[in-house]
Amino acid sequence: MGRLVVTTAGESHGAGEVCILDGVPSGLRLSRGDIDTDLARRQKGYGRGARMLIEADRCQFLAGVRLGKTLGSPICILVENKDHANWQEVMASDQPEPDQLLAPLTIPRPGHADLAGAAKYAHVDLRNVLERASARETAARVAAGAVAKRLLFEVGVQVRGRVLSVGSVVATSATDLTDPMAIDWDAVERSPFACDDERSDLLMRTEVDKAREAGESLGGVFEVWCWGVCPGLGGYSQGPDRLDGGLLGAIASIPAVKGAQMGDAFRDALLPGSMVHDPLIPTHGGGRTWIARTTNHAAGTEGGVSNGMPLVVRAAMKPIPTLTSPLASVDLATMESAPAHVERSDVVAVTAATIVGEAMVAITVANADLSKFGGDNIDDFKQAVVTYEGRVEAQ
Amino acid sequence: MGRLVVTTAGESHGAGEVCILDGVPSGLRLSRGDIDTDLARRQKGYGRGARMLIEADRCQFLAGVRLGKTLGSPICILVENKDHANWQEVMASDQPEPDQLLAPLTIPRPGHADLAGAAKYAHVDLRNVLERASARETAARVAAGAVAKRLLFEVGVQVRGRVLSVGSVVATSATDLTDPMAIDWDAVERSPFACDDERSDLLMRTEVDKAREAGESLGGVFEVWCWGVCPGLGGYSQGPDRLDGGLLGAIASIPAVKGAQMGDAFRDALLPGSMVHDPLIPTHGGGRTWIARTTNHAAGTEGGVSNGMPLVVRAAMKPIPTLTSPLASVDLATMESAPAHVERSDVVAVTAATIVGEAMVAITVANADLSKFGGDNIDDFKQAVVTYEGRVEAQ
Amino acid sequence: MGRLVVTTAGESHGAGEVCILDGVPSGLRLSRGDIDTDLARRQKGYGRGARMLIEADRCQFLAGVRLGKTLGSPICILVENKDHANWQEVMASDQPEPDQLLAPLTIPRPGHADLAGAAKYAHVDLRNVLERASARETAARVAAGAVAKRLLFEVGVQVRGRVLSVGSVVATSATDLTDPMAIDWDAVERSPFACDDERSDLLMRTEVDKAREAGESLGGVFEVWCWGVCPGLGGYSQGPDRLDGGLLGAIASIPAVKGAQMGDAFRDALLPGSMVHDPLIPTHGGGRTWIARTTNHAAGTEGGVSNGMPLVVRAAMKPIPTLTSPLASVDLATMESAPAHVERSDVVAVTAATIVGEAMVAITVANADLSKFGGDNIDDFKQAVVTYEGRVEAQ
Amino acid sequence: MGRLVVTTAGESHGAGEVCILDGVPSGLRLSRGDIDTDLARRQKGYGRGARMLIEADRCQFLAGVRLGKTLGSPICILVENKDHANWQEVMASDQPEPDQLLAPLTIPRPGHADLAGAAKYAHVDLRNVLERASARETAARVAAGAVAKRLLFEVGVQVRGRVLSVGSVVATSATDLTDPMAIDWDAVERSPFACDDERSDLLMRTEVDKAREAGESLGGVFEVWCWGVCPGLGGYSQGPDRLDGGLLGAIASIPAVKGAQMGDAFRDALLPGSMVHDPLIPTHGGGRTWIARTTNHAAGTEGGVSNGMPLVVRAAMKPIPTLTSPLASVDLATMESAPAHVERSDVVAVTAATIVGEAMVAITVANADLSKFGGDNIDDFKQAVVTYEGRVEAQ
Repeated sequence: MGRLVVTTAGESHGAGEVCILDGVPSGLRLSRGDIDTDLARRQKGYGRGARMLIEADRCQFLAGVRLGKTLGSPICILVENKDHANWQEVMASDQPEPDQLLAPLTIPRPGHADLAGAAKYAHVDLRNVLERASARETAARVAAGAVAKRLLFEVGVQVRGRVLSVGSVVATSATDLTDPMAIDWDAVERSPFACDDERSDLLMRTEVDKAREAGESLGGVFEVWCWGVCPGLGGYSQGPDRLDGGLLGAIASIPAVKGAQMGDAFRDALLPGSMVHDPLIPTHGGGRTWIARTTNHAAGTEGGVSNGMPLVVRAAMKPIPTLTSPLASVDLATMESAPAHVERSDVVAVTAATIVGEAMVAITVANADLSKFGGDNIDDFKQAVVTYEGRVEAQ
Repeated sequence: MGRLVVTTAGESHGAGEVCILDGVPSGLRLSRGDIDTDLARRQKGYGRGARMLIEADRCQFLAGVRLGKTLGSPICILVENKDHANWQEVMASDQPEPDQLLAPLTIPRPGHADLAGAAKYAHVDLRNVLERASARETAARVAAGAVAKRLLFEVGVQVRGRVLSVGSVVATSATDLTDPMAIDWDAVERSPFACDDERSDLLMRTEVDKAREAGESLGGVFEVWCWGVCPGLGGYSQGPDRLDGGLLGAIASIPAVKGAQMGDAFRDALLPGSMVHDPLIPTHGGGRTWIARTTNHAAGTEGGVSNGMPLVVRAAMKPIPTLTSPLASVDLATMESAPAHVERSDVVAVTAATIVGEAMVAITVANADLSKFGGDNIDDFKQAVVTYEGRVEAQ
Repeated sequence: MGRLVVTTAGESHGAGEVCILDGVPSGLRLSRGDIDTDLARRQKGYGRGARMLIEADRCQFLAGVRLGKTLGSPICILVENKDHANWQEVMASDQPEPDQLLAPLTIPRPGHADLAGAAKYAHVDLRNVLERASARETAARVAAGAVAKRLLFEVGVQVRGRVLSVGSVVATSATDLTDPMAIDWDAVERSPFACDDERSDLLMRTEVDKAREAGESLGGVFEVWCWGVCPGLGGYSQGPDRLDGGLLGAIASIPAVKGAQMGDAFRDALLPGSMVHDPLIPTHGGGRTWIARTTNHAAGTEGGVSNGMPLVVRAAMKPIPTLTSPLASVDLATMESAPAHVERSDVVAVTAATIVGEAMVAITVANADLSKFGGDNIDDFKQAVVTYEGRVEAQ
Repeated sequence: MGRLVVTTAGESHGAGEVCILDGVPSGLRLSRGDIDTDLARRQKGYGRGARMLIEADRCQFLAGVRLGKTLGSPICILVENKDHANWQEVMASDQPEPDQLLAPLTIPRPGHADLAGAAKYAHVDLRNVLERASARETAARVAAGAVAKRLLFEVGVQVRGRVLSVGSVVATSATDLTDPMAIDWDAVERSPFACDDERSDLLMRTEVDKAREAGESLGGVFEVWCWGVCPGLGGYSQGPDRLDGGLLGAIASIPAVKGAQMGDAFRDALLPGSMVHDPLIPTHGGGRTWIARTTNHAAGTEGGVSNGMPLVVRAAMKPIPTLTSPLASVDLATMESAPAHVERSDVVAVTAATIVGEAMVAITVANADLSKFGGDNIDDFKQAVVTYEGRVEAQ
């Protein structure tokens, strides 16, 4: 499972979200601000619910960081749930007094884990499912991802995401996959949808407003770029070594993401080979010759291995499963029809999911990098990357 | 990583493809025929190259099976490469005599692992890359998948795939995701493309013939169904527990597959929640009441957990990277432009990839099943499934 | 790696010790008291240092437990370091102001990770090593072990340890390995050394007092019993499946434990087979016949598989590496001879290590149990165990 | 689980023993002879049974090695069981004809997996247990270990074992743990017991001859050295990172090994700290100063991390469980007393186990080395080791 292992815990209204990262080299500069920045980005987005006003996520390091640097020991980050104060009784870990029993939730929401989770764990109270099967757990992933990004930054790798569509509104952003610098990342950050196509902005707002009024929810498509990656990450020795499979599996592990592709893979499947594969071109300059590609349909991997071009992953996020105009459901207590439970929720969360997507890509690439280059100290790791890049260039 | 661990080895023109399956319960009936059937299905498909005429894959059990049943110990399956006889010198494991050095391959094929693999492993002879980064390795996966299917069959789970498009020809097969029995699986088996839409057949043939003439290659989209799955497989505790993420990652670990989605996820991302989530309906019959769904947009998982509906995974396969009209490349020996190396290859292999897709889905679901239900003997495993299904029904 | 995954984090004077347990079934009754009891037992023992007066470990559940039961989601336990309040500046996670730099520790203690850890991680300040490479991390293991014990208790398995020697004083406790009930466990709990041989008590105290006066430290041998285990845990399919290897590796992962054996293995290696292997005896009673053993030299495993007899693991703990009469060392800042750094420490900690040993055995056996029997809910798990035990009995 | 993953398969009288090694860098010179040498060493030893006359193990590479070098892809090694020719019918993988049913073995041998394995897997025929739970599987481990040794040799690490006792005869070999070169390894190789204490030879022969006559079996103690290891392998971040725990667990995963210790840990547990911990001494020479140790009670690890001194692991092997004067057992078919089944066996196999011990140590250290230093190509790996060793020296 590689060198970087991320483990999380936390219920949505419990004490907090926790992650432990094992395998980060020592000596990496790391501050709470590095993580809080991404936690704040995760909370943004037009169409979010009231919860985002309560939480203003800030992290604490419980372990693994001392005096501004990683120790090499496991890093433990806690993001407290401020809302927990309002849920002390409902979410207490202690057994309640006999007269304090709480009414269970018994009407599952279609599209959510509620019903399947109740079967799996024999839960009668659906709160026992939805507290963990909540997108709130992604706060811990984002915290872990921020550490991975810091590590990658040290070897010249950057990770950034943007939204391509919200509901039926599809941005007309450029889709050339070769150059991340052609994207206006400042516009992405300014946008309430993390979408750099400013002409779509108004349409997306209208789409969200209409959905909210209708008691509806929306999904969307987002894209994560990762560039500066050296060739040779991942592998083809065993199936799970493949970097593209790893990226798509990681992205699809985000709640509500049900599809993932490298670049434009579903479209490319319709095209002939000559229109899809990226020709190799000998290129001269500065006294040396190297091999370049002028297209990146492969979206950064060939044969499951990074090829030095930007990695570009796209994800399809289904609409939020909680609708304020609830769908038809069944009350498990009576087995009668009932409208689904309405838990406070967002109308759309694709902007937030984009930040989670960045985290999953960063964790996956950092893991591939550490697995390939080893190193218990950040300088050992960087040295191995530099030496390798020199070897590849000279090849 | 779960209970069922599959490890493979093998070069395309080496002695053979090998897999070891660890974690299969004892007492499962298993014959060579169970595996050879799928090996033969993997070799079919209009548009395959000459290699498929040489190989008629047959398996041997090197370990783990005795007198027609699994032992509980690791199962080792060998699929010999018949073509190896023609490659003894090139693929010898022994160091050659000094005067026998073979000319290395030095012109990488765009779209293949050749160049990235050479960087990763410091290989000068690209044969050292392409022998493992060849789709031939999927023979071992198909063998492992056949064992997983046998196991799943014991608990009422079936896995079948079909092709949805070949190049630009898209079948007009029904896309209702609720009922696998509405698909004419016999037609799928008869079709040279594993496509049940017989009207597409002629168009697909023409597409392939034209591509072959043009020195082109093609990709396609395939779909794998898995039904009879109980609710509660997978999970939402940790990201990697999610069954949908696991399925998409596994499917995307197949060579040339660059995109994957549960059902129609990329389309569903454009729709409002009320059109995507599957309502829950109390249903009566036979003296009991249960909860049914009349749609299956979720394609079998909610919250990363199987919900009892069919799992449906779709995969986008890029065109084969070897073109007989080769793409522009670079000779690594001279760093001059050169047409890409042409290794004997198929025009299209989406039919074969469908069988590999079945294998990956079967392995993933079998692993989830064994991880949830345990059992070192097949009857212990089956008993646990039956007891659980009774518990869920009564819930 | 199995079903139950335990991950820990925490520095000795940091905010606290954290563990995440993934894979515990839902519905298990679990209270903070279950854990605090073992945390308190870990802090006992004659010969401990001043730290134990500061800490009176109490746990909090940050996740995974609600209203007195496990949720099935990851359990996160925090044991705060009360001493952290005194170390806020030294152990801050934030980068200090430029004028606040702390004097590094530069004189490694022989026998401790100090020097090897400094090499591994390129640490200049040895505090960056010793904070994690401290036995304080075992508080998190003990917390995890207490959860494992609760789980095992549900299927009739108990885990208890005792001390066999402290320094050169070897208890003359009975060493028959068949019957845990022949041991006076109450005496073990009462003893300041967790040793049931009350005659050794005074000798052990004297040994410790003498050692303290001499600025010395001591080691010892402890033994962990685990009984009520069904036959069939572990396995012989792959090396790492073996339960005895797993137990010995787990026990030897405890800081300062450098040797481990099943029962009396090092003595048994000198004896002929007829004196070591445990004969099988048909036994009748209550209308049925079963197979009994009247000896347990195997200490509970044959062929790497539990055989139903008690598991008995013995561990050799080296003397504490911090001596108040410090050993010869080298100041890394000057490369001159210097007496080793003296960090506050215990004279002997074999009593505490015994509780950690219980935890490691409990985690290992719980993992083997969950891997064999599966089950996402405690009743599913228990049902599978009961069904299996019935099958084995009838065999 | 680290970078180097070894998976094995094979029944004792099946087609052969197979191992797959995943994670070995490309470009490592590797010949069949490298492996056959250790396979032959495993078959030696006074007191072995008739089987060793039948088998003269030779390996084949089924994958991963081409033209004398590793490819970086999985290495698959097959060691055919020559005896299989005599067991074709009994060990056939195909279901027998109804009239060909073989009489099952039903009398378990005390000390062997027979009875516990039958419970675990619901096997009626004990042959289904004993074929995998046989020490013959260690041929595959030895093959994998030979590859690990080749890798380690490239970075200056050597692994060698010797026998310390056979039955009650304990060699009086020197036990200073600092200098592997003080051991006469040639004498070890010449000895029929792999014991360098030539004075013990005659006594050991007599011990074995007497045991054979008495229908007895014997165990023994062996020791494996590994030197040239850099400081910093293993770790203290998580329990399973600890190199000493990993080594002891790996050694104890060898069939019949029931105890393991670093150096003389069980004796050291009786001693005060000043007699156990190894003082650090500033040492000058060749224009530089470094830190030396004149003792190695720690046997090469401190705090779970290699410290640059030789690793020394000792293992206690129980007597072979098959006695020609069989122990009391029970016929499972009748539940009556019966003497245990006698399968052809050795009187003692501690010499063979020593070679398996070398393999397990080599695999464990190679895994730790690859996990720390990464590298997909042997020169990348070596470069990282050299760079690190330079960094540590300058520290």
